[in-house]
Amino acid sequence: MKALKIFSDAALSDSAAKLLREGVAPHEVISAAKPAGSILAKSEPDPAFADADIAFGQPDLVNIHHSNRLRWVQLTSAGFTRYDTPEFRAAATARGLLVTNSSTVFSEPCAEHVLAFMLAQSRLLPQSIQTNHGYGSAPWQKFRADATLLRHQNVLLLGFGAIALRLVELLRPFEMKLAALRRKPKGNEPIAIVTREQLPQALAQADHVVNILPESRETARFINAERLASMKRGAFFYNIGRGATVDQDALVEALRSGRLGAAWLDVTSPEPLPAGHPLLSAPNCFITPHTGGGQPKEAEALVRHFLHNFRLYLEGAPLTDRVI
Amino acid sequence: MKALKIFSDAALSDSAAKLLREGVAPHEVISAAKPAGSILAKSEPDPAFADADIAFGQPDLVNIHHSNRLRWVQLTSAGFTRYDTPEFRAAATARGLLVTNSSTVFSEPCAEHVLAFMLAQSRLLPQSIQTNHGYGSAPWQKFRADATLLRHQNVLLLGFGAIALRLVELLRPFEMKLAALRRKPKGNEPIAIVTREQLPQALAQADHVVNILPESRETARFINAERLASMKRGAFFYNIGRGATVDQDALVEALRSGRLGAAWLDVTSPEPLPAGHPLLSAPNCFITPHTGGGQPKEAEALVRHFLHNFRLYLEGAPLTDRVI
Repeated sequence: MKALKIFSDAALSDSAAKLLREGVAPHEVISAAKPAGSILAKSEPDPAFADADIAFGQPDLVNIHHSNRLRWVQLTSAGFTRYDTPEFRAAATARGLLVTNSSTVFSEPCAEHVLAFMLAQSRLLPQSIQTNHGYGSAPWQKFRADATLLRHQNVLLLGFGAIALRLVELLRPFEMKLAALRRKPKGNEPIAIVTREQLPQALAQADHVVNILPESRETARFINAERLASMKRGAFFYNIGRGATVDQDALVEALRSGRLGAAWLDVTSPEPLPAGHPLLSAPNCFITPHTGGGQPKEAEALVRHFLHNFRLYLEGAPLTDRVI
Repeated sequence: MKALKIFSDAALSDSAAKLLREGVAPHEVISAAKPAGSILAKSEPDPAFADADIAFGQPDLVNIHHSNRLRWVQLTSAGFTRYDTPEFRAAATARGLLVTNSSTVFSEPCAEHVLAFMLAQSRLLPQSIQTNHGYGSAPWQKFRADATLLRHQNVLLLGFGAIALRLVELLRPFEMKLAALRRKPKGNEPIAIVTREQLPQALAQADHVVNILPESRETARFINAERLASMKRGAFFYNIGRGATVDQDALVEALRSGRLGAAWLDVTSPEPLPAGHPLLSAPNCFITPHTGGGQPKEAEALVRHFLHNFRLYLEGAPLTDRVI
């Protein structure tokens, strides 16, 4: 077999780059002249791309468009907004280009991150840490009474991919009522799936609404004023998907009015928010800076996921995390 | 059967008091002239106690000592420091006095509280919330790299009662290495039990050390400088047991030196800590004000637990959460 050329524009540590080179040998890695600044940043057009059979990272759309050789793109992110257009999908399908993402790499940290949000809210961690109230005092009585339990509560997931699947596993011991909205149900989901028509009712029943939606034309501002108004008064909203799926003005209003009990966001639009943005000072709004996917040796994990798929590719087997 | 008299000094809401009265009828509740200030506070001696067959709350030791009628005490706490002395145990055993606590009521909130601590630490919530760093920026890279996963990590539990049992259930999906120190192993524990002799080695292997020890003469300052020095550099320490089981000066030193990566404490000694106490400003020390047992309708939950045991008592069946 002729040696394949793998173009990589991923921002890899030295050890991750070595893992990639050694893992694909005798096939060859072509490194981008200018690697992407992060695993989500778009990389620049690169003349070396023309020789690539496979691309790993966040390759340039124009490069992809002009390549005659390219057969497979593995993205280093779970989201793939830039590539998730009808035009790109149609073009990729027409020429037989495989596209995979790295959902599997991010499902564990993102699911743990959301559960951290849910439990920190239930146990009122941001509100109570270092308050040093005395046992029996009035503020203590209030914390004690306002603390809640996840056990037996009602959770609605918006989106049902790898992160949701792992979150469902983590939530199992809490014996919760779980349901999910999924664009195209496959029939093998381990929890109840609700349709668009059932969504208002499902929103009204949920104590916790977890948004895991990817960004696309279809999901833009999916969480709008109307859907926020459908939620149970005092419900908790979490976003581990993409910021653009939320109408942030409506979210601020829902927090100010007390309609929502709290919002926990790992993603916003834009990132970071401009100084003085109302979400930064909205009541009961807790924002982490898109760190949900963080994990020790993240670059190595992305490379290992690529190598796993590379072996499947060489065998002609179906790839993991295929999105197109 | 003659109507039994149940002395209650528990600080109950009106609805919880009603639940208790109706639940024991036709038996009779004698309410203390001055209910305890909280579920942990010692109540005052009360002349009405002399008529009680059963006591519910935190009854006075002298009252108990002088009572000829008392057959059973149900404490409204999980900890029972005041009653956990060799003298009280011997006296209770000699006269056939049953003592139960409310561990079962507190296992869920306390286990959820510890898991909230563990996940908030792993996902760096206190450190990263509202920092609003940009994707790809240097501080963002650091958060992203320093975030950890609970999955596959090593946990050592100090103490193995109802809270630990529930925590083990909640941790199951994380596929962790779990072990516990238990004073008197029963042989039916679902995880590995370590002996006192094996403790230094177990401390050295743990990424997370969870202290659930009750307060007694035996456990006073159990976590001392020597045991802290046995821990893995950068390990995380949690305390949901009692503050007096920790040498707090040694803990401050372990945090300052970086020996411990962080401490998450729901209990301290005393509570609250005096203003300016070094634990309040120790690096990576996060303290909630003994709110771990908090839950919606806590008083009702305590009464329901009492009523469950009351039915068993009337049937002559073994009581739940018996401690003496």
